[in-house]
Amino acid sequence: MYPISFGSDNHSGIHYKVFSSLQQANVGFCPAYGDDALTERILSEIEALFGGDCTAWFVITGTGANVVSLQNFLRSYHAVFCANSSHINVDECGAVQKFTQARLKVIDTPDGKLTPELIEPKLLTNRDQHHSQGRVVSIAQSTEYGTLYTLEELKALADFAHQHEMFLHIDGARLANAAAALDCSLQAMTKDIGADIVSFGGAKNGLLFGEAIISFCPQITTDMRFYRKQASQLFSKMRFIAAQYEAYLDQDLWLANARAANSMTRLLAEKLKEFKQIKITQPVLVNSLYAILPREITPALQDKYHFYMWNEALNEVRLMCSFNTQVEQIEEFIEHLRELLAE
Amino acid sequence: MYPISFGSDNHSGIHYKVFSSLQQANVGFCPAYGDDALTERILSEIEALFGGDCTAWFVITGTGANVVSLQNFLRSYHAVFCANSSHINVDECGAVQKFTQARLKVIDTPDGKLTPELIEPKLLTNRDQHHSQGRVVSIAQSTEYGTLYTLEELKALADFAHQHEMFLHIDGARLANAAAALDCSLQAMTKDIGADIVSFGGAKNGLLFGEAIISFCPQITTDMRFYRKQASQLFSKMRFIAAQYEAYLDQDLWLANARAANSMTRLLAEKLKEFKQIKITQPVLVNSLYAILPREITPALQDKYHFYMWNEALNEVRLMCSFNTQVEQIEEFIEHLRELLAE
Amino acid sequence: MYPISFGSDNHSGIHYKVFSSLQQANVGFCPAYGDDALTERILSEIEALFGGDCTAWFVITGTGANVVSLQNFLRSYHAVFCANSSHINVDECGAVQKFTQARLKVIDTPDGKLTPELIEPKLLTNRDQHHSQGRVVSIAQSTEYGTLYTLEELKALADFAHQHEMFLHIDGARLANAAAALDCSLQAMTKDIGADIVSFGGAKNGLLFGEAIISFCPQITTDMRFYRKQASQLFSKMRFIAAQYEAYLDQDLWLANARAANSMTRLLAEKLKEFKQIKITQPVLVNSLYAILPREITPALQDKYHFYMWNEALNEVRLMCSFNTQVEQIEEFIEHLRELLAE
Amino acid sequence: MYPISFGSDNHSGIHYKVFSSLQQANVGFCPAYGDDALTERILSEIEALFGGDCTAWFVITGTGANVVSLQNFLRSYHAVFCANSSHINVDECGAVQKFTQARLKVIDTPDGKLTPELIEPKLLTNRDQHHSQGRVVSIAQSTEYGTLYTLEELKALADFAHQHEMFLHIDGARLANAAAALDCSLQAMTKDIGADIVSFGGAKNGLLFGEAIISFCPQITTDMRFYRKQASQLFSKMRFIAAQYEAYLDQDLWLANARAANSMTRLLAEKLKEFKQIKITQPVLVNSLYAILPREITPALQDKYHFYMWNEALNEVRLMCSFNTQVEQIEEFIEHLRELLAE
Repeated sequence: MYPISFGSDNHSGIHYKVFSSLQQANVGFCPAYGDDALTERILSEIEALFGGDCTAWFVITGTGANVVSLQNFLRSYHAVFCANSSHINVDECGAVQKFTQARLKVIDTPDGKLTPELIEPKLLTNRDQHHSQGRVVSIAQSTEYGTLYTLEELKALADFAHQHEMFLHIDGARLANAAAALDCSLQAMTKDIGADIVSFGGAKNGLLFGEAIISFCPQITTDMRFYRKQASQLFSKMRFIAAQYEAYLDQDLWLANARAANSMTRLLAEKLKEFKQIKITQPVLVNSLYAILPREITPALQDKYHFYMWNEALNEVRLMCSFNTQVEQIEEFIEHLRELLAE
Repeated sequence: MYPISFGSDNHSGIHYKVFSSLQQANVGFCPAYGDDALTERILSEIEALFGGDCTAWFVITGTGANVVSLQNFLRSYHAVFCANSSHINVDECGAVQKFTQARLKVIDTPDGKLTPELIEPKLLTNRDQHHSQGRVVSIAQSTEYGTLYTLEELKALADFAHQHEMFLHIDGARLANAAAALDCSLQAMTKDIGADIVSFGGAKNGLLFGEAIISFCPQITTDMRFYRKQASQLFSKMRFIAAQYEAYLDQDLWLANARAANSMTRLLAEKLKEFKQIKITQPVLVNSLYAILPREITPALQDKYHFYMWNEALNEVRLMCSFNTQVEQIEEFIEHLRELLAE
Repeated sequence: MYPISFGSDNHSGIHYKVFSSLQQANVGFCPAYGDDALTERILSEIEALFGGDCTAWFVITGTGANVVSLQNFLRSYHAVFCANSSHINVDECGAVQKFTQARLKVIDTPDGKLTPELIEPKLLTNRDQHHSQGRVVSIAQSTEYGTLYTLEELKALADFAHQHEMFLHIDGARLANAAAALDCSLQAMTKDIGADIVSFGGAKNGLLFGEAIISFCPQITTDMRFYRKQASQLFSKMRFIAAQYEAYLDQDLWLANARAANSMTRLLAEKLKEFKQIKITQPVLVNSLYAILPREITPALQDKYHFYMWNEALNEVRLMCSFNTQVEQIEEFIEHLRELLAE
Repeated sequence: MYPISFGSDNHSGIHYKVFSSLQQANVGFCPAYGDDALTERILSEIEALFGGDCTAWFVITGTGANVVSLQNFLRSYHAVFCANSSHINVDECGAVQKFTQARLKVIDTPDGKLTPELIEPKLLTNRDQHHSQGRVVSIAQSTEYGTLYTLEELKALADFAHQHEMFLHIDGARLANAAAALDCSLQAMTKDIGADIVSFGGAKNGLLFGEAIISFCPQITTDMRFYRKQASQLFSKMRFIAAQYEAYLDQDLWLANARAANSMTRLLAEKLKEFKQIKITQPVLVNSLYAILPREITPALQDKYHFYMWNEALNEVRLMCSFNTQVEQIEEFIEHLRELLAE
């Protein structure tokens, strides 16, 4: 246990309102697997939040959200376009291929963002029997590099996908942070730009666990519940996911938490700018910050504050804030950094 | 939400000590994915509880525990022997085949229990290239029928498996109930009889979620963490599974909870015996009870008390108690039943 | 090399007309993978033979035909009903599960034949998320026991499947032998009874190799060529499969070969009846014969004539004839048998 | 049927000696699936040709050889390093991922050849649970670009793989052409440089079909026959693959055929050099030739001589010769080309 970690937004705990909602749900007996009124009600609220005419399901983990979502669209001869840096490519130990049997077609990007121009040269939807056929464009909003797609960029990708009989999947593990940064609704970033399926993450933004999948293609996602169960992503005591989301939706806690995390990251960025020995390497848009530190002070700093080395060659590190990162913690971190640099 | 459900032991909530342990863990920041001291300590305690010389991992769900465990032992041309009524055959929507690519060889049993004699005629370990090769014998303790293997029966199965170069897997979603009923240690039912891999369930016995896998074949389960991650069963905020198990192990809460559930079920059985119109169809050994009810009263009873029809043809139903089923609730249920029968 | 084997119909060689057709095709250069005029023409002829309004593809092996056919209909949460004795269950080393990720639901039968009555109790198409959903009924015509479905039985199975939103697959590795025995057209056994997809085998009836798949569901089998390629069942020098089928179709060689094999088997049966020590255990309808031999003469007989023990406990063996089994070979076999029995 | 195609080496037919060997094998009856003396003998001869202390199996297709070979080494969390242009990446419709469940890690190369330097930055064998772990380096000799690895380059790759606990797989669909070009033995290119598993192709070099897999890791490939059967790559009338390889090995027909194809390609290259409008873009080492043609004459040339456009943007085409390409055919092609260019 650390007093503060900048390692990841899932190093934080559970927001007190979410915890309190868990407690309220812990009375009596309740049918399992989602056959309860609370789950039904909260899923409807999520559907409304995304603009209606869509269907929502709960799953347990972020990797689970991605594989269960994608299975609906993919047969084994299909391919998914994704950025080289994407979570489904780098951080899921091959789960998407394992579950879907389809291929990832990985695209190098400067900033973690796909564009129609980057995909087009790799596109194979010609139905030649020797080649895996492109079927899904999968992006993350915000991306693993902390970058953001504008609404126009999102729409361009959805249009491009649809023109080529493909679908757009958005990994929304940090969708709340993106909404906070773009100052737009969840609907604007998903339904309105033509997304086909998205996830709306909770674990990185103050929940104990729980992710929602929202499909705008109900005619294709008819079998979601089978894929979810078979993927071991059907939670038995489902009321406790619903209860967490109840708190998460109430008075837009999801947005408040995301704003807090984003704003603490901006604060950290501002304070780091005073050190000429430190170079921030990416625009700070959401809750992650990439910076090159002086090599000699890094181990001592990591000893006290947990964070990850991103690029060993450059001594570039990633610092993340979460919903409950405190101003004092950032000040203390800066103070400690100052001392180390002074030595 | 029902005041009481006899539908399943996962209709109950979270034991207050477990809840309190969650609360205590909810301070500060903590590395994710199990890289924390609490997780490490609790896994060691679980290993000790199973007799040492074994390795424990946490996963999220019961289906997850089964598929992740089995993947270590299976290549795609292998087969798993299991009872027709087993959870991996009936209740996991094909997850074991999906994850392992191996086959289930399903065996009819009178009581949900496999024996060497039932398996032997179906055994194919002759390495003929046309046939899937038997590799794992998978059982549940207690079984889905609420029956139990004696220690001698367990040992006979493990010996049989090993004689044929197979392994013994025990689905221990209700291992605690079995230990309570047999009045033996967890070690006695697993390590001592020669089991190769077992799960030790929590969700059906007072936890919010969380299952432990314990391997007695460390040389074979070297890749467990990859299978776990790829299966979307690696929990990010792992300290909160560890915290639940901390409470679960403390003063043998797992055993107390299981004893409570078993004893409430025995109480229910005793009280049902007074009704000559009701026939209990299976020995009541753990926390499930199978009974044939008069057909005309069943719907009204189900309206008020949630439980499942097991065999429509016989009007046989399943009633389950859980760690927090109360004597008053049983008495009230019996009272209501009496009134319905009197009408 | 044996002068004669009763082991299997694939122990025989290549019919001389088929061989001659291979030779004629071996001139010049030809596009690979089926992009040639001969392949196109012969596939059209096969489609006509099955009544038109269908689509035919060539694959390489019988196991290949089954897995590629079934993939079109199955997603990973589906189940296939098949007889315990079926080739897809027993003889393909788990290939159907491996390729489709779906489950086989295996049904015990007295004679290798499924019926609606046998399937109905095991039917799960209720779309409950915990259970694999029935999707395909798979049968073989003729069966692995040498039994036959009548046209009425076939129609009843197709109707039953369709009533439950399932499909009927016919493994036709020995479809020619069935047509010869029932004295009906290929169309009558497949399109006319409502089959959805069938194979029309060649390797067991005088070809070097090659199987045809015929789909009566073109709207579902749109992706066949991808499954075929991915399954390593796309033959590169395809003209040579087409050439074999050209000879096979010419003057109904497929039928003449099947009739020859069936008739030799009947001859063998008649001659065996003279020995009161030998008991024929199944009706002899196509080209396989099951008989209980005196145990003491079996090894000597097997030394000279290759055939398989079927049921060790009963000393029941299987004797198969093929397109080129000769009367003299049967007479010689009977003679040798007589001598052994006399000893 | 074309009198001549430069489209691919599998557009050619069957060498007459191979055909004659098929004919000789077409007598009598023979156990199926490889349980015959001819198969056993020819596999031994192949093993001897590769230097002994290895094990050989026959499979049907080139894709089959790759997937069956790789399955032995891979579990679902593993990764295979391969060139972007490799057959397993581009031309098998995702078969390797489908069969092995592992990932391809695709590497851009200038010439279709991997090097330790290209792989090293992408290497993940650190056993971090979030990432697929590198396990196999897969190359083709000769490559899909018609380039060749020297023996030193092969050894460097094998050493690199072994240093990182990985294995070296060689797709030898055109191994004969490589041996002819390098003027070295098959053993020198495989066993001697430390390869772990290789294929020795026949279909592109004068056979009707048939590929051999040779494993130098018998302790790892113990389950090959199960993978082969399950992959639908076990040929039933196996004696006919053996018979083809009997002719192929006799007096090194494989080498003579490969030399013929290579030498015809060199002849074609020489003759093309006289046209200053045509630019040969890759060194001509084996039996493929890449050249940029004048755009205006290409359609007319393709009408008469089948060949593939390789790079539409450059109007770069691929011309391949095969074992039976004739000097007169090349002269006729050149003549036709001259006429088209003169117009």
